[in-house]
This record gives sequence, structure tokens and C-alpha cells, in this order.
Amino acid sequence: MSASPSKNTVRVGVIGTGRIGRIHTTNLMRRIEGATVAAVADPFVDNAREWLDPLGVPEIHKDYKAVLGNPEVDAVYVCSSTDTHAQIVEEAAAAGKHIFCEKPIDLDVAKVRGALEKVERAGVTMMVGFNRRFDHNYAALQAAVAAGEVGQVHLVKITSRDPQPPPIDYVKVSGGLFLDMTIHDFDMARFLSGSEVTAVSAAGTVLVSNEIGAAGDIDTAVITLWFENGAIGVIDNSRQAVYGYDQRAEVFGSKGMVRTENDTETRVIRTTAEGPRSDKPLWFFLERYAEAYARESEAFVRALREGTTPPTTGADGLAPMLIGGAARKSLEEKRVVTIAEVS
Amino acid sequence: MSASPSKNTVRVGVIGTGRIGRIHTTNLMRRIEGATVAAVADPFVDNAREWLDPLGVPEIHKDYKAVLGNPEVDAVYVCSSTDTHAQIVEEAAAAGKHIFCEKPIDLDVAKVRGALEKVERAGVTMMVGFNRRFDHNYAALQAAVAAGEVGQVHLVKITSRDPQPPPIDYVKVSGGLFLDMTIHDFDMARFLSGSEVTAVSAAGTVLVSNEIGAAGDIDTAVITLWFENGAIGVIDNSRQAVYGYDQRAEVFGSKGMVRTENDTETRVIRTTAEGPRSDKPLWFFLERYAEAYARESEAFVRALREGTTPPTTGADGLAPMLIGGAARKSLEEKRVVTIAEVS
Amino acid sequence: MSASPSKNTVRVGVIGTGRIGRIHTTNLMRRIEGATVAAVADPFVDNAREWLDPLGVPEIHKDYKAVLGNPEVDAVYVCSSTDTHAQIVEEAAAAGKHIFCEKPIDLDVAKVRGALEKVERAGVTMMVGFNRRFDHNYAALQAAVAAGEVGQVHLVKITSRDPQPPPIDYVKVSGGLFLDMTIHDFDMARFLSGSEVTAVSAAGTVLVSNEIGAAGDIDTAVITLWFENGAIGVIDNSRQAVYGYDQRAEVFGSKGMVRTENDTETRVIRTTAEGPRSDKPLWFFLERYAEAYARESEAFVRALREGTTPPTTGADGLAPMLIGGAARKSLEEKRVVTIAEVS
Amino acid sequence: MSASPSKNTVRVGVIGTGRIGRIHTTNLMRRIEGATVAAVADPFVDNAREWLDPLGVPEIHKDYKAVLGNPEVDAVYVCSSTDTHAQIVEEAAAAGKHIFCEKPIDLDVAKVRGALEKVERAGVTMMVGFNRRFDHNYAALQAAVAAGEVGQVHLVKITSRDPQPPPIDYVKVSGGLFLDMTIHDFDMARFLSGSEVTAVSAAGTVLVSNEIGAAGDIDTAVITLWFENGAIGVIDNSRQAVYGYDQRAEVFGSKGMVRTENDTETRVIRTTAEGPRSDKPLWFFLERYAEAYARESEAFVRALREGTTPPTTGADGLAPMLIGGAARKSLEEKRVVTIAEVS
Repeated sequence: MSASPSKNTVRVGVIGTGRIGRIHTTNLMRRIEGATVAAVADPFVDNAREWLDPLGVPEIHKDYKAVLGNPEVDAVYVCSSTDTHAQIVEEAAAAGKHIFCEKPIDLDVAKVRGALEKVERAGVTMMVGFNRRFDHNYAALQAAVAAGEVGQVHLVKITSRDPQPPPIDYVKVSGGLFLDMTIHDFDMARFLSGSEVTAVSAAGTVLVSNEIGAAGDIDTAVITLWFENGAIGVIDNSRQAVYGYDQRAEVFGSKGMVRTENDTETRVIRTTAEGPRSDKPLWFFLERYAEAYARESEAFVRALREGTTPPTTGADGLAPMLIGGAARKSLEEKRVVTIAEVS
Repeated sequence: MSASPSKNTVRVGVIGTGRIGRIHTTNLMRRIEGATVAAVADPFVDNAREWLDPLGVPEIHKDYKAVLGNPEVDAVYVCSSTDTHAQIVEEAAAAGKHIFCEKPIDLDVAKVRGALEKVERAGVTMMVGFNRRFDHNYAALQAAVAAGEVGQVHLVKITSRDPQPPPIDYVKVSGGLFLDMTIHDFDMARFLSGSEVTAVSAAGTVLVSNEIGAAGDIDTAVITLWFENGAIGVIDNSRQAVYGYDQRAEVFGSKGMVRTENDTETRVIRTTAEGPRSDKPLWFFLERYAEAYARESEAFVRALREGTTPPTTGADGLAPMLIGGAARKSLEEKRVVTIAEVS
Repeated sequence: MSASPSKNTVRVGVIGTGRIGRIHTTNLMRRIEGATVAAVADPFVDNAREWLDPLGVPEIHKDYKAVLGNPEVDAVYVCSSTDTHAQIVEEAAAAGKHIFCEKPIDLDVAKVRGALEKVERAGVTMMVGFNRRFDHNYAALQAAVAAGEVGQVHLVKITSRDPQPPPIDYVKVSGGLFLDMTIHDFDMARFLSGSEVTAVSAAGTVLVSNEIGAAGDIDTAVITLWFENGAIGVIDNSRQAVYGYDQRAEVFGSKGMVRTENDTETRVIRTTAEGPRSDKPLWFFLERYAEAYARESEAFVRALREGTTPPTTGADGLAPMLIGGAARKSLEEKRVVTIAEVS
Repeated sequence: MSASPSKNTVRVGVIGTGRIGRIHTTNLMRRIEGATVAAVADPFVDNAREWLDPLGVPEIHKDYKAVLGNPEVDAVYVCSSTDTHAQIVEEAAAAGKHIFCEKPIDLDVAKVRGALEKVERAGVTMMVGFNRRFDHNYAALQAAVAAGEVGQVHLVKITSRDPQPPPIDYVKVSGGLFLDMTIHDFDMARFLSGSEVTAVSAAGTVLVSNEIGAAGDIDTAVITLWFENGAIGVIDNSRQAVYGYDQRAEVFGSKGMVRTENDTETRVIRTTAEGPRSDKPLWFFLERYAEAYARESEAFVRALREGTTPPTTGADGLAPMLIGGAARKSLEEKRVVTIAEVS
């Protein structure tokens, strides 16, 4: 593997060596068959030396342009800060690199559309990182729905609660709860229902942190979705579940229901005079979705090697942004907003 | 008990001997300490002879006025068809009888208000039958919330799905999904949150039965609620869950979450080559809420004997009707509707 | 019912008005169709007046002979102290009464055999009270096994732990753990396996209470059983599970496994920063087997009314005693003991 | 890591490239910090080329002596067939290599003792591979017991059932159920109880496969254990659970109980008209203990790097063999056999 990439190996350049860049670099070097990291780049790459050096990545740069300029690099992972995604995606497309881009592509729909257009024109493959689709639980739900186990889909319910709010400085540039956090759930709603969202109604409020409210954002929300196939969806969000990352979903239909509980560290039950106690959900996304990140990269690498369309495309990156825009408009105008209105 | 009611025994007249009347009559004769059924009345009481005769109720009438005219009767249970509730409640109040009335008091808010006014003027005690409050699971959730176990309430989630739709003739006179079925969930939302609903947004559609759609009703719905205390609620309904009566709830707050799964016949797990299988939820309300009906009557009888306010009053009968009205308006106008608008 | 027993009603005399006598009397008066209590007797019946009087039992005696002498009485429930069972059973048989006898019939096998012989000669119907067979969970396990759901039975596992040890004075006359407590599990083993026990090996020790050890008894045990059908069984007992009455079982076979968890008061899960917590098992047998006692009496009454053999007979009362005897012998001699050796 | 082993890196030679050798080699090359595989050896190593080649192990031999002779090798993993373990262990010790040896060291106690003696004399570190101790569930149970969560240990219960019997040719040389399969459970019993086994009583029979019976072995067993600390243990085994690898344990004590359910692929619940169905246990040891194997190697490598005693030693390899010997004797003589008798 990493030792001697064969001709068929996908040589990746990772742009951004923060938390997510680290996950992808490590997975690509250690776990993903048929891929290797040929180069990484980050202005602050020196902060990453501790975990990066033992991995033996051949090239380490401060400037991502060095990665894009490397003819050995087949594909790039765009893991830099959100405000740089669109620009890098466009440059990578122009350089003929395939692209794996972390969500969101940009907070501005017009910029997203611009970037996707350039990707399409360049004819490179692009995948947007909706890691949760690769979670064993959600993937099994989707497979069950697709196999007809619940019959016609009637209701899709998604619970997504973070264990703690992000730093307020992050909140301020995050694009707001709907584009930063719920965007994953909008994608999940499309994934599980197998259908497009046509309209949205949102309720949102500030119950977790006044600081978040002062920043003009909300921290608690319930969003109702109308799907093209007639089903109704509902998402509930909180920025703070004291018991850990709460990631559950349920699909109900004419033939039954499939749902998933949270993953836990163990299956141990501790029963004392106070009663039975089981494990909390895994703490946060790094723990819950560790495997999902690996499977996500496997899917991208496989698509590149087999010349197929990856499971999530640029269009899949745009769709939840539109839903998020409609949700924000609904929150402001206290009414159902159609996706058509914001497209 | 039934053998020799003491002076302190509450003598009940049960009006209506259908399914619900039977439950109450049987509970009052067999299980409830301090109460006995002194008389029952139903135009079709002959259809009830099989279960009624062995109970040994002393008086059996066709006309409920005979019950109201009996000076021995302390309190009446109004279990007749919905369109007769308001009239009987008013007459019972005039006759100085305490009243237990099945929900809804009437489908017309003005008539409900009229009846409640007469009850208040008569100074009799009135309880409206929201049996689910007396379910062991929901009662434990409410107690946990009231005890502060979840801290400040942020989200209240209620799932309520019937195993099968009612006969279409019933649907036509039912007042619609919101007043017939969701009304229980509106009450549950007030009960669990410990707060009043101030606004509603509803999504509803026809996915179970075209017949229901043709009757102008819906069979699948998601309703978002805004509470006075700042929390957000969400209810999902279906007229048909093929796996049985799905009655779950979850309250999430600043300190944690309490939720309840469905009751089942047994705790048996059957594991074959196909995997582990456990029991379905109890089939319908008669099974799930059998105990709750008894506890409900215990609460009414206790309130009468102790001269206290019963746990659900006439006002509790009105509040969910207003929420239901707002939900219907929201469905039509595709916007958030405040309770104030419909009051 | 109780108000006016018809000709076809089984008129019961309850002998013994302690905890168990109260359960049966109450069930027979309030819940069991086709039966009524015509008389009760207990030397200390005055202690039972508080619960007994409201039930309206027509005759109340101090001497059980008055019950046996009452020609109106069809059947007796023997709920007195264990050392009086055999004598009363014999007299009841002689008086032509059908007999429901609480376990054990006696601690002495010869006396049990003597009593059963007299019952047989008298031609009356006898049922021994193994209430757990009528528990919804165990009954479902047995039905599944009998229906072939697990295929050929390979392993039968029973966990039976009390929430607290009985008073030491009771322990001293109880016949020891195997005859007092495990006897229920021996019966359950026969019930679930559908087969007879042929040999036993027992491990037992004193870990809960030195007082129990000083009384020559044990409080913790593991007993292995060999069944006629080739299966192996294992029972584990403790006199003290601090979390409540632990009553579980598992049957494993060629096609799978069925098992049951404990019953709980609710299905509520409380999740705080410490993790999810669910209900403890119901506290003790009065709570766990409340329904089972009623179903047990229903089965006895049905057998009498239909002239069929009750589900547990006198022979079913003897069999677990022999297993218990073999277990005690095995404990002493540290070897496998066959039932044949102690029969 | 593998790319450039630093001075402090443990250089491993893996002897045997079957199923277990592959797991260890892959973990050591890809996942274990501070270790690398310097050489592998197996007479049939050509059969392993497909998975071995991409790992980039520098030296590949047919003869294990080449590994032992390599001065670069710090430690060996003995993953060859059981009958070669003792010999290789002795030679490795003589060559001054630290040793990780798969269980059992040998089927003959005298040979095990001989090998352990030579290891001790050589002063090298030895760890015996009881992978289950490193399973997240069992490790959590043990930690809870060690932390006093259950108080004084009273009962230890272990369920261990394979999804399917091994090939009959393997059964014939396996040493029998107790030494081949139950040996893991004997180790688990010592691990969970924190105490030594002093006596054994075994029940065993042939219910799964006549072929196994014809080979003189059993396929179904229940084994009772007496511990030095006064607790009682019980293990149940089957060679065939049609629903998959059933690996559960429960420790009960004066303050409560800890137990673990099986791991599953997902946390999905599928509810149809037939009721709720959840995942089967992971199929077999490769699936259930994949993580445990990695953690086991991490523990060995850490012990070597830190110069500490590994969590399982040669003595831990011997102890369960003696218990197994006592179990076999108990089965034959139908009595309790002490470990002292077979030591």
C-alpha cells in the first residue's frame, strides 16, 4: 500500500490538515485499499507534524497550489476552512484533479453553483462529504427502505443533537444552525426517503446558549419537510445533549418501520440498586462516524478506480443548502416555504 | 364494595354502554375502591346484557334521564356518542351530578364553552377523560419532567399511530384527525411539557386510505407546537401502523432526556437464524390503556371523595380542541397559527 | 359474580388468610369468572379483617374444619403454613373437596406421597400452585418451545434471585434453599424443557448472610440438571439481588433460542449525563406474579368447571421435591446424584 | 510506522500465516503504534501471498528458524498449528526472543510446563493470546468488577456458543471441547472473577453432531466452577448456535450485576407486522473480536516497550488447561474434581 503505490493506486493530495484532514489522511494511508496520500498542504501544517510525520506522506506543503501543481496527484480532498472550498474546488477542477470536498461547498448558493459548473465543465469527478450516509446504521436504514421493507414511505424522522455547542467564534461564521448542522440532516432526509424535499417549515429558538442567540443564530429547532413522493419528514436539532451525540432516525411506511438507536462503546448493562444502566451514545462525530469516514473514502476511491459516479455528487452538496435556505426563510416568515422559492 | 356500598361510596351512573362505557362500568364495579355503579343507561342497553348482567348493576335504563333523576346517583360517566356529550353534561350539571366526560366534550368550541359554563355555575366537579395521562409510562415521564430530571424542557416529541383506521362512517363524523386522534397528543403535549401551547404548524396528507381523503380528512400528519415556556413540540400521527398501536414520547431538556417505548405482552426475545425478535406493541388502546382507564377512574373517585380538583378538568378538555382548530387552520393556510387566533 | 353465584359457579373455601390466601381470595372474589369464595378460615383471621371485610365473603371461620364441613364448598385453597398442608389435603380429599394446594405439599416426601394417594383414592381434582407457569413471559417461552421454535432443546437456563432473604425464623423451617426457593425453578425446568429431570449436580454456598449459614442453609447456588430428552439445564439462585427480583430464563436449541427479561413497572428510559437508565425488575413475587396468580386460579376453576385435568397436578408437586432432595445429596457428596437414588 | 521503524519500534517475526497469523500481521503493520513485522514464516506462506504482499513485510520465509535466527527480530508471534507451539516457544526463548503465543501452548500439561520453564530461565517476556480479555465488552465487565461495582462477587456466568462446529478433522486433534473451546471461558472466568478456580463439575453431551460424538468429543456442555474467593461460576457451551456467535457474560455480586449482550453489526430495529427484529450477533470470532486482536497486540507491544509484565502470562496459559483437565475428569467420573487433583 503506502509503501509502494502501484499504477492503479489513487494518489491523493489532502488540502487542510485540521481535524477532518487528519481523519482522511490517516484513513487513506492506513486503511483504504488502492489509495495513498502523495501530498498534503496547510498553511499551519507544522501544527500537524505530530500525527503527520509517522504516516510518511511524501510531500508536505504550506501552499495548496503546490498540491494542485503536482502532476502525480490524481485527486484532492478539500478539507480547508469553508470559505476557501469554492475557490479550491474551482482551481482543482481547472487542474484536472478529481475532488472530494467537505460540506458545505460554500455558504453562498451562487458560489456553489459557480463551482459546480466549473467542475462539470472540467469533466472531473466530484464527491461531497456527507459522511453519515456511510454510517453502518444509516446505511442499513436506507438499504431497508430501498428494498421496500417499510413499503411506501410515510414518515421520516431524524434526531440530531450535538453534545455541546461549538465555540461562539465558529458559530458566527458557520452560516447558522440550518447550514452548519441541519445540513447533514437535510442530506439524510433525502438519503433515507429516496426523494427530493419540496417544501419546508421550521421552528427554531434559543434554549442552550444566550451567546448563540446574541450571534443571531438558534440552537434548538424542529423542521418539517415535504417530500416529492408524498412523505412527510421531521428533524429535531439541539446544540447540546448532555448525554452525548444523539443521532437517531426512523422511517415509517405502509409495511412497517425501521429505526436506529445510537452506537455505544460497549453492550454492557450495569444493574445496581438504582436499576439498569447502559452506555451513553458515543461522544461526538469523531467517535460515532470514525468508520463512516473510512467507508466514505473507500467509496470515493472505488468510484475513481472504477470510473463510476460517486454516491454523493456536487448536486447532493447543493440540494441541502437550498433546503437550509428555505428553512431560514420559513423561520423568519412563519410559513411553509417551497424549495422552488429559494432556487 | 359492590356488595354493600357504604355511605362514603361514590354512586355512579354510567350513560352509554358501548366499548368505553363497558370499561368504566367494569372497573367501577370490580376494581375501584370507594365507588359503585348504581345505574347505567343506553338506548341499546340490551346489546350490553351479556357483560352487564354478571356485574350486578342495580338499575338498568334505556333513557339517561332516569339516571340523572335518581337522587342516589352522585356522579355520571358520560360515555355516549360525542354529539350527545354537551347536552348530557349540561343536564347532569343542572341535576347536581358530578361529571366524568369522555373526550371530546363536543366538536364545536362554542358548545364546549357553553357546557363548561353551566358546569361551573352548578358548582359540580367535572373531569374530562384523557386516559393516557394515567398510563404508567406517560405518568412516569411527566413525573420525571416535573421533578426536574430533564432540567428545562427544550423538546417534546410524541408518536401516536393507530394500528388501523376507524370505519369510514366514523371518520366522517369524527371531527377530523386533529380533533379525533391528535387531541390526545395535544393533551399529552400540555401534560408532559407542563406548559400551554401558544402556536401550531401542521403538515398533513393522505397516505393510508383514499377513502379518508375522499371524506375530506387526512391520515398522516406532523404537527409542530410552540409552548409558553419556550420549548418546541412535535407530534407525528398515522392512522395505520401495521405493527400495532405505536405510543411513544420523549422529553428532552437541559439536563437530559426521558422517553418511553411501547408496552408489550411479554419481555420474551426469540432468536432464530433470522435474528432476535421481540413482541409487537400491544394492539390498540383497549390493550395498552386497560390499566390507565382504571387509574383514571380511581383519580376521579378520589377527587370526589376528598373534595379536590380532579387531575383533568373541563378546561383541559377545551385546550386541546383549540390547538386542534389551530392545526386545521395551519394545514389550510400553510403557516404558523397562534392559539390566540382561534380562541 | 360474587353478588349472585349461579349454579355453575365454583364455591371455594380458602384456608389460610396470609399473604397468599389474600391474593387468592381477592382474585376469586373480584377477577375470576365462574368462582366465588364461600368461606375462609384461619386461626388468626381477625388480622385479615381489613382486607377481608370489604370483599364480602359470606362465612369467616377460625377453624378450617368448618370450611371442610360446609357442603356448599366445592373446592379448597390450602394456603396455610407448610407443615399443615398434607393434613388438610388429606382431610379435604376425605370430605370430597377439590384441592388447590400451595407448594410444597410437605417437606417430607413420604408424607407428600401419602397425601397424594389419598387424593387419588378420593377421586377429587388436585392442583399444586406453581404460579410461575402462568406468568406471561414463562408461558410464552414454554409455548414457543412446545411449538418447536427452538427445535430440539439443548440447554435450559433459569435465573432466580430474590431481592432479600426471608426472616431467619422462616429460613429455619423452610426446608432449605432447594426445597423452599429452587423448587420453583425445578418446576420451571420441567415446564420449559417438556422433559423429566434424571440427575442433578449442585454447588451451593453462603455469601449473602452468615445467619443463613449458621442455620445450616445456603443462600447462593448453581444447580445443573440432566433431562430425559438429553438436554442440560442450569439454575442459578441467590437470596439477595439488591436490584430486585431477578426472574429470567432461556431455552436454547437446534433452531434458536427464546429467553425472557424481567418485567418492569414502565418502559421509560431516563438518559442523563450518566447515561441511559431503565427500570429495575419488579420488586418481588407479589409484584411480578400478580397476574400469574390470577391466571393460575382461572386455570384451576376452568379445570373444575370443564372436568379436565388442571395444568399442574399432585405429581407435579412431588417431582421438584425429589429433584430438591437429589440436589441436597449432591451438595453433600460432591457428585452427580440421580433422581432414581432419592425416589 | 511501517515505513520507517524507529529504534524504539518492536520488530516482530510472525510464525504461521493462517487466519490468526494474518490478523496479527495486518494489525502490526497497519494499526499498532510502535511495532512492525520484520519477517514472517510459514511452510505454506505462498498461500498467503495475496494478503501478505501488499503489506510490504521485508522478509518472508518458509522456515521459522530463519525468523528466530534474525537478530533484528525482537519478538515472535507463534501462530502455527498447536502441536508446534511448545517447540517453537522453547526455541524462541533460547534465541532470546520475546514471545506472543496463541492458545493453547500445548495440549499436554507437562509439555506446557516444560516450555514455560525454559521461557522463565531465558528471561524473555511471554504473553499468551487470550483475545477475549481485550474485547470492549468483557474488558468493561472486568473493570467494573475490579472497581467494586458489583461488590463481592457471588456468581460468574459465561455463555459461549459457536455459530457452527469446526471440521471434524479439526475436532479430532483439538484436544476436545474443554481444551479447544471452553479454555477461553475458563480464562474469562479467572479474568472476570479476579480469582482462581479451585474445583470443577462438568456436564457434557452430544446434541449438535453425531460425528463429534463418534470422535469421542462432546458439543454441548455446562461447567460449574468453584473460585478461591468463594464465588461460583457457570459456563454453558454449544458448538452450534444457528443465530451466530453467542458471547455473553454476567457477574453478580453483593452490590449488583454487570452483564454484556452480544455485539451486532448495527443498532437498527426493523418492525413489521411480525414485530420488531434486531441484528444477529456478529457471525464468529473474526468479526466479534477484530478489535480485540488489535488491542491484544497493543498490550503486548506496550509491555515490551515499557518493560512491564503483559496482561496475560505463560501461567495464564497453563491455568485454564488444568481447569479443562479437571472438567474432563469430572465428566468421566460424575463428581466434583479439584484443580489440585490434576496439577
